[in-house]
Order: sequence, then C-alpha cells, then structure tokens
Amino acid sequence: MVTRPTPQTAGPDPGPDPGPERPRRGRGRRPAQQVRGQILAAAGQLLREEGMGAFTVERVAARAGASKVTIYKWWPTKGVLALEAYAAGVDDVLAVPDTGDVEADLTTQLSTFVRLLRETAAGRVMAELIGAAQTDPELAAAYRRVYLGPRRAVGIAALRTAQQRGQIRAGADLEVISDQLWGACIYRLMMGQPLTEQLAQDLVHNLLAGLRP
Amino acid sequence: MVTRPTPQTAGPDPGPDPGPERPRRGRGRRPAQQVRGQILAAAGQLLREEGMGAFTVERVAARAGASKVTIYKWWPTKGVLALEAYAAGVDDVLAVPDTGDVEADLTTQLSTFVRLLRETAAGRVMAELIGAAQTDPELAAAYRRVYLGPRRAVGIAALRTAQQRGQIRAGADLEVISDQLWGACIYRLMMGQPLTEQLAQDLVHNLLAGLRP
Repeated sequence: MVTRPTPQTAGPDPGPDPGPERPRRGRGRRPAQQVRGQILAAAGQLLREEGMGAFTVERVAARAGASKVTIYKWWPTKGVLALEAYAAGVDDVLAVPDTGDVEADLTTQLSTFVRLLRETAAGRVMAELIGAAQTDPELAAAYRRVYLGPRRAVGIAALRTAQQRGQIRAGADLEVISDQLWGACIYRLMMGQPLTEQLAQDLVHNLLAGLRP
Repeated sequence: MVTRPTPQTAGPDPGPDPGPERPRRGRGRRPAQQVRGQILAAAGQLLREEGMGAFTVERVAARAGASKVTIYKWWPTKGVLALEAYAAGVDDVLAVPDTGDVEADLTTQLSTFVRLLRETAAGRVMAELIGAAQTDPELAAAYRRVYLGPRRAVGIAALRTAQQRGQIRAGADLEVISDQLWGACIYRLMMGQPLTEQLAQDLVHNLLAGLRP
C-alpha cells in the first residue's frame, strides 16, 4: 500500500494548515499529509485483511493513531475512505504495455488484471465496494470519480492508440470495447465465475479476431 | 408479475400438506401453492415500487396476508425471497429469436434486455440484488442457482446453435462470449454507464465481425 495520497481525492485536499493549527514539526504533531497517508495505509491493510464487512472508521482510526473526527474531515463516509485506500494500492500493476502488437499488449495487461482479481484481496474488496455502491449513491459517485474514471481512461487510451494506428477499425466505440474486456472480468468476479489463466486471451482474441470461423 | 411459482425454488417445495394441518378448502384456508404465489407477487410488487432498500419480510407478509413464519418456512432470507420474486417476473422477455441470422437474433434479444434494464425497475432491482450478494454468500449462491444459471443457459444455448451451424468458430468458449454480451450490459448497469439503443448492436457486432479494420 502506498502512503502518498492519490491525485484524485474524495474529500478536500488538506493542503498546508494555516494559522495557529499549523502542524508543529518536531513537537509531536504529524503533518496533515503524513496523517492522511497513514490513514489510507491503515484502511488499506484492514480492507485486505478483513474485507468490507469488518471495515469501520473506528477501527481505521485506532490503527492509524488518528481520531474519527480527522477521518470524517477528509472522507464523507467509510465507503469513500475504503475506496480511496483500495485505489491507492492497485495502480502500479494496471499499466498497458506498448510493443505495437495490440493483441499481445491487451492480453498481457488483462492477464495481470485477472490475476490481481483472483489471487489478492483486491478482487473481493472491489466486488464488495461495487456491491455497496448499488444502494449508496454517494459511494457510487465516488467510485466513478475516484476509481473507475481514471482507470477506465488508461485502458481506453491504449485502445485509442491502437485505433489511431489502424489496428482497430475507425468508429468503434472504445468504451463498449472496454466493457467487453475489463468489464467482463469484473462481471465474472461478481458472479463467482472462474477467473482462469485462459480468460484474458479469450476476451482479447474474441474481439480482435472476431467470432466468425 | 406471474403468480405461479418458478421451477427453481429457493426453499423446499411446500408440497401436499399431510395430516391434520392439510389445507381445508372451502373453509377459509388457502392452498399452500396459492399462498406461495401471492407472497411472490407481493414481493415482486414491493421490489418494483420501492427497491431493495425498503424490502422487508414484514412488509411482504402484510401485503400478501401471510405470516412472517410462513415466509421464512419457504425462503431462508429476505434476499432469496426478493431474488425469486424478481426472477419470476422477467422471464418472458428474455427468449432469443432464431431466424438463422445469429447477428440479428442476438442483437434483437440484447436490445430487449438493455431496454428492460434501462426502462423498468428490473435494472435497479438486479443491480441491488447482485450488490447485496457480494457480502451475503447465501444470497450469492441462490442468485447463481435460481436466477443466473437458468438465464445464462438460454443465451449459451443460442450461441451453441450458432456454433453448430458454423456461424461461430469451433472451440470458442461460449461462457466467455456470454459475459462479453449480457455481462457487459450488467456491468454498465452497475457502473451507472449509459444503456443506449446502440449498445446491443455494438456489443454483438464487435464480437461477430471483430475489431480489426
């Protein structure tokens, strides 16, 4: 779990603390950014260890050595805190390589993504967050803004590059393609269907080669 | 909403009631199958009108004129009851036509499915049920058995017919294709992405024609 905050924050950025409340370094008060990072790290650990069912602001506060008031200053609900902590921990693996072979590059990235969902707590946490978002509009909006938007953009940028090179036909809706690749993986995760080694290759090949004999 | 029970029941079938508790027709006691149908109908109405957030066994019991004990005799949790009530109400629209043109037939069926998700309460209810299943293993298992399994089988049977006719290449994994069609729709539903008129056509055409120019 990284300890730096992500660029997309769910709450207002704490920024430098002006006036009398400014952290006094060396006298026991941690800078706001450090506290923020420690809260996200503690939240990420708790999520990976025990999932959303056991995730409370109180437990995160105890682990991070912070107060619940501090947490609620930056994150409006426990769902949004869980989401941001989750998002901060999964970014590095999701880059799409660019060797010029769009089928190989997408398959490589999707294989990594499927393994992340299958072999780490990330899959369960993501499924539980999306699940909770179905009856929590604030969490749903935060999920789209903080998590889905930026990561969907990475996949669509790779598809756009392939389209500009003439490897994907002009006019194809790249968001729909994205949902037939990454979306299909997340759907299988949420339905309890197997996330096999073969899956990434099948998803990409079905689309790029087409299903006709 | 239909009032007959579905073939896949979540609880034990009430069957004929032996001994002194057998329903006495004509003396005010409703047959068990009738009570069961009325409970499912009441549950379906409540779901469509107010969604999972307001769905309780108590309210279903009051609407159906049945006791909570009766409901819990047949359905282990309110989630499983909601699921079965939902499933009983959406079957008729999901048949796949068979004109021999696999692209046209799949597009017709997926257009109907997308409209069902977009324009009726079915979409919200399905999203909330799948969401709740992420932290409720009993509901998740019931969802797969009662709802997903039979309906997934309908789509896969249509794909298998096309494969046997040589319209889809041999060896293609039909479950993966199913997730790139119906799964992608449900994923978009759960992410709050638009369910447009164009979507069904794009999903099917991307796969059948392939993405290469």
